Amino acid sequence: MAKLSLADIRDARARIASGIYLSPCPESIPISEVCGSTVYCKLEYLQRTGSFKERGARNALMQLDIPQRQQGVVAASAGNHALGLAYHGKLLGIPVTVVMPAFAPLIKRFTCEKLGARVVMHGDNLDAARAKADEIQRTEGLKYIHGFDGIDVIAGQGTIALEVLEQVPDADAILVPVGGGGLIAGIAVAAKAIRPEIQVIGIEPENAACFTAALQAGSPTLIGLKPTLADGLAVSKIGANAFALARPLVDRIVTVSERYLELATLRLIELEKGVVEGAAAAPLAAFLQHGIAELKGKKVVLILSGGNIDPMVLGRVIEKAMVADDRLCRFTAVVSDRPGGLSKLSEAIAKTGAQIKDIFHDRIFSGSDIFSVNVLCVVEIQNAAHRDRLYASIRATGIEVIEQS
Amino acid sequence: MAKLSLADIRDARARIASGIYLSPCPESIPISEVCGSTVYCKLEYLQRTGSFKERGARNALMQLDIPQRQQGVVAASAGNHALGLAYHGKLLGIPVTVVMPAFAPLIKRFTCEKLGARVVMHGDNLDAARAKADEIQRTEGLKYIHGFDGIDVIAGQGTIALEVLEQVPDADAILVPVGGGGLIAGIAVAAKAIRPEIQVIGIEPENAACFTAALQAGSPTLIGLKPTLADGLAVSKIGANAFALARPLVDRIVTVSERYLELATLRLIELEKGVVEGAAAAPLAAFLQHGIAELKGKKVVLILSGGNIDPMVLGRVIEKAMVADDRLCRFTAVVSDRPGGLSKLSEAIAKTGAQIKDIFHDRIFSGSDIFSVNVLCVVEIQNAAHRDRLYASIRATGIEVIEQS
Repeated sequence: MAKLSLADIRDARARIASGIYLSPCPESIPISEVCGSTVYCKLEYLQRTGSFKERGARNALMQLDIPQRQQGVVAASAGNHALGLAYHGKLLGIPVTVVMPAFAPLIKRFTCEKLGARVVMHGDNLDAARAKADEIQRTEGLKYIHGFDGIDVIAGQGTIALEVLEQVPDADAILVPVGGGGLIAGIAVAAKAIRPEIQVIGIEPENAACFTAALQAGSPTLIGLKPTLADGLAVSKIGANAFALARPLVDRIVTVSERYLELATLRLIELEKGVVEGAAAAPLAAFLQHGIAELKGKKVVLILSGGNIDPMVLGRVIEKAMVADDRLCRFTAVVSDRPGGLSKLSEAIAKTGAQIKDIFHDRIFSGSDIFSVNVLCVVEIQNAAHRDRLYASIRATGIEVIEQS
Repeated sequence: MAKLSLADIRDARARIASGIYLSPCPESIPISEVCGSTVYCKLEYLQRTGSFKERGARNALMQLDIPQRQQGVVAASAGNHALGLAYHGKLLGIPVTVVMPAFAPLIKRFTCEKLGARVVMHGDNLDAARAKADEIQRTEGLKYIHGFDGIDVIAGQGTIALEVLEQVPDADAILVPVGGGGLIAGIAVAAKAIRPEIQVIGIEPENAACFTAALQAGSPTLIGLKPTLADGLAVSKIGANAFALARPLVDRIVTVSERYLELATLRLIELEKGVVEGAAAAPLAAFLQHGIAELKGKKVVLILSGGNIDPMVLGRVIEKAMVADDRLCRFTAVVSDRPGGLSKLSEAIAKTGAQIKDIFHDRIFSGSDIFSVNVLCVVEIQNAAHRDRLYASIRATGIEVIEQS
């Protein structure tokens, strides 16, 4: 039976304080305007390795006995837990081994190695990496540090709530991304003990809703994962300890679609000027997708859990979100493949004030008429009405427009 | 003769305080590691409209007399000055007209309109927009508010230095982006009066180095501009007042290349998790490009002046910077256009642990051999050595590699 008290989390805070950044939690006026609430953002992506995972990792490492410290620890992780362990292992002089599946981003693997961790690449998924880590644990006598379900780790993550309730003492709600459940379990235990009336709301991607599945089944249950931008939340089974602690305390769990995760990431870039990974965009995505009427006018804290998004992925997300936001449109124009054809098209576009971002001539697949060519256009627009004016302007010249989404 | 004192800037601070965000100035540990100094970042991109320009705009607006307040103001600006005026005009109930050249980003035009400003689109460059604004000023009796050379505006920008020297009282140096010179003039007046030993260093893009040109000529002089990512710094002549105030106080001016502006933008995304526009990346670019040996081990404050980068541009900058950083490479592989040709190529790439990001078959321009095809590849790598291993691995299969930069 999982047990964790406010006192444990206060102890954890004292234990890890010297190595953890007290991240700010400012109000974001532009986001408040978008959400219709007074919105504070807890900037956990400003931790040294870019996520809150350091808190749990450091709390677990600090409690090893001396032989364990010398022997070292091992964990399977494709990302933030690995970075948190590697960094604090280095600070504390504890050898760290991380087993990463083959899909782990190059930059995370490279950073772990730079921080002095031993990185073992193994398997095509986290389960295979975990099996390898278990083997290393047995053969080398290392201590396994679970990324979200160890009580020490959950206690470490809970320290966020202690800070939040000092920074925004009268917060009405905390919105927390949910992957394996360690973060929301720790936050719920601390926040509800200090301020019982606060709402603790968990946010999961629709494509990885393992807490929702566990609520329906009554206990942690294995789900099928679909790909999600919030890769840090892609956990196929909620942690048993995390679920036992969080279930009685969490007010509700909300799921969000990929489209809203993308839009929320773009909004945080544009409005908060913050670089967040998909997981950290989940709380804002919930606002954008569902409105969350009962939080209108209330003080709401979003936990922006991490910022380790692959820069290349960030570029793609921006483009996709601009499309979802009706600020970028893609269409194929069938123009005459004779002098002046393209000029007619670009003039019709310019006339509406839209800006061409990309243009691609496709001759091979343009169909049977060899005197016309398909021109694939990516054009920046202001909104959906502007797009309609754009298409009308092109069609008025006799050029056919095939809309694409 | 331009006159501005510390007392004027203190007055400005009191005048604008109720409408300006006291932006944080935290130490950035990862950036400190990269620079070899203790680096603090003044997060001016967190102002409500995304840049420090609000300070000067508000200070100028607050000093209008009542008839002028009712009549309204006008300015030519493609960007942050327009946004700052529009926002504070709205807060203060002062009508604002901004004249934007045609190239102004859609989002800035749209935001100014949302903030209630009248937006006039005119001309292909800022000079043409300025001429139109002058005409409006004359015909409608509006007050012209210059973006960087009015003493009120310079005093407003100088308030940043007052905050910085409270946040980092023992700072050894402040690195300031330089466009028209208003920001560095205000900062230099305040900072040198409070702490004479502090170094004030200005950073300009090589492609728009109007302060450097004025230093060489002895007075403000017109330069030819080349395109720069730091579009907010693309000013063809330093402000006369700004130059007169800054020249005797500024310790040095450093120029930076486009490549380092791009790299610095990427580093701020990855290390500081901050979204900055090119201008704001200039101070870090100076560190990356020149090392700035005399600042080693010192306390240095970077003014991250704004975050209004077009999201589409941000995506492109990330890709370009990844190339400059040897983490993305582009090459053409000449493969057999028969079954299995592509498979041989992709296997050779996968073997080295590199990840294919984009692949494009180019049949038409593949030269005379109709049984081979040019495959343009964009591949993510770890560093330059990894790229060399990648090319060797492909060539070992007999596939020709044509390197591209």
